[in-house]
Amino acid sequence: MKHLDLSTLGEIKLIELLTREIVLYSDNVIRGVGDDAAVLKGEGEDWLLFTTDMLIESVHFSMAYIKPDHVGAKALVASVSDIAAMGGRPLHAIVSLGIPIKFSVEVLKGIYSGLRSAAEEYRLNIVGGDTVKSPGKLIINVALIGCVGAGKAVYRSGAKPGDLVFVTGSLGNSAAGLFLYQNPGTRVSPEAGSFLKSAHTNPKARVKQGVLLAGTGKVTSMDDISDGLATELHEICQASGVGCRIRSPLIPQDQRMKEAAAAAKRDPLNWALYGGEDFELIFTVRPDSAAAIKRLFSEEGEKCHLIGEIVQPADGISMELPQGYFVPLEAKGYDHFKARND
Amino acid sequence: MKHLDLSTLGEIKLIELLTREIVLYSDNVIRGVGDDAAVLKGEGEDWLLFTTDMLIESVHFSMAYIKPDHVGAKALVASVSDIAAMGGRPLHAIVSLGIPIKFSVEVLKGIYSGLRSAAEEYRLNIVGGDTVKSPGKLIINVALIGCVGAGKAVYRSGAKPGDLVFVTGSLGNSAAGLFLYQNPGTRVSPEAGSFLKSAHTNPKARVKQGVLLAGTGKVTSMDDISDGLATELHEICQASGVGCRIRSPLIPQDQRMKEAAAAAKRDPLNWALYGGEDFELIFTVRPDSAAAIKRLFSEEGEKCHLIGEIVQPADGISMELPQGYFVPLEAKGYDHFKARND
Repeated sequence: MKHLDLSTLGEIKLIELLTREIVLYSDNVIRGVGDDAAVLKGEGEDWLLFTTDMLIESVHFSMAYIKPDHVGAKALVASVSDIAAMGGRPLHAIVSLGIPIKFSVEVLKGIYSGLRSAAEEYRLNIVGGDTVKSPGKLIINVALIGCVGAGKAVYRSGAKPGDLVFVTGSLGNSAAGLFLYQNPGTRVSPEAGSFLKSAHTNPKARVKQGVLLAGTGKVTSMDDISDGLATELHEICQASGVGCRIRSPLIPQDQRMKEAAAAAKRDPLNWALYGGEDFELIFTVRPDSAAAIKRLFSEEGEKCHLIGEIVQPADGISMELPQGYFVPLEAKGYDHFKARND
Repeated sequence: MKHLDLSTLGEIKLIELLTREIVLYSDNVIRGVGDDAAVLKGEGEDWLLFTTDMLIESVHFSMAYIKPDHVGAKALVASVSDIAAMGGRPLHAIVSLGIPIKFSVEVLKGIYSGLRSAAEEYRLNIVGGDTVKSPGKLIINVALIGCVGAGKAVYRSGAKPGDLVFVTGSLGNSAAGLFLYQNPGTRVSPEAGSFLKSAHTNPKARVKQGVLLAGTGKVTSMDDISDGLATELHEICQASGVGCRIRSPLIPQDQRMKEAAAAAKRDPLNWALYGGEDFELIFTVRPDSAAAIKRLFSEEGEKCHLIGEIVQPADGISMELPQGYFVPLEAKGYDHFKARND
């Protein structure tokens, strides 16, 4: 095991390597390492969910594009989205800040203002934290406790061949927004620019959708799209031991995202497949439940889109192009350690 | 509020400034921001405790002195100590790592080995985490859920004039150990060197003592000594709205720490008062409960030492010297933001 290199190992294998010898000391851990949140048996009827997300300036966000309040809100939303991906509701958050000593108090007040706004939006309590000096960049870690009805948590690992694959909302908007920040000369309509930039700086977690889906008892697997659709598909397929086939024309793309892609001379499908931080949900259902779930979403004024189906593991993970043939779908979303080949 | 400078504001005032506008959205938060851990009502009989600690390389530890497994263990112990300070037991931890891309997998495996060892020692479950790239130093954030019997949590805020002040164990050992690492030429006995260095690199959280104390129902306030005795005394006095008088000859100092101080030509009292990371507990009790608590500790083979008493707030926070006169006791322990004047 000597001379292992982080850049060749990649994030998923690194986590597997680090956590495989972990021992549990009580039988109230229903699900430990390996999903969006841990699932814990409490004393009452509900199960507890427990998750964390660390955001670091220059890795996860640039203060050049994002206002301090959006940094704070986004840090909280990233963790709330993990709870949503289990079908749960957020309850209590604690926030660790690693603060560069040269930071102004005004910037910190902005970050806390954003944390408070997001806490209000998701009706969760900020109940503590830690505040330390950072010798480098700003660091925000949010740890979050949530809850879900006993037996109602939805994992990544329950997809079966024949299940249909759905996503909520539309994809690629956050990636398009980031592109517009990084390339301010891109000529898009004010409405598209505002929508896409907001998708990047002020994303929303799909708590309502996750709770609706878990409540049906018919969702076989679920994940939030934080690192890109392709990566999340790989996570579900790996955890479930299955393959999947999606169809590229079915991937929901907002007209404003396509407008920006045209102006930027980029393929909108790339943003939709590989752009992270949309925080939409991807989920799988048995075919005979699909109509009921579509109807439920429609009644609640929410949108979800069929994008493909789960297949046998030997069939791999692939995408059907409009021309009718299939190409393998690589997990090219954001990986913190793997060398990039895109 | 413009042009506020972090270095003049200090950590406690910064936290107060950032968190004072926080709104709670449910009535099951028994104690939010402002103690060692949040106290939350669950569905069952026990209360939940929730805390977090962020450790950053070069701020909290130096990889030059501390082996990777001790870094991992210490990160967990810091959070477990917060739970101990409330009188609770640790249950479930999640670990966020910010990893410099040049780090070797071997070092990360060492950190996780230390996390696992500490998890075994305190019988807690590591149930998840987040693993991200750090553009700077190594960052470890541990978030921890614990539990305490309903109504049994001990806060910083319950000390009353007349209460007696105790500490567990002995103080200054971690500071002495750090000094020995930083000044390897200091001539101390191998036994003292080994004991003090271990106190710094492999500290223990006083869970057993905290649970014993909370179980008596007679402890009026408690804190863990993570930032130095003087700082923790100030925290208790500020939270309780009281003053205190401690007596310097009563502050427990291990003979090996005094040996190192003599060899280093340092005042051992300085290490005992201002050295952080001993993770002993400081607590206050009504005078008529002191004998029972001393007896309980003695029966359990544990040590605690009377160091002073709580006084009226107008009397301030002071220390009686052997010569018989009192000097004000400043909070000179570690503050992440305040300019150092020692």
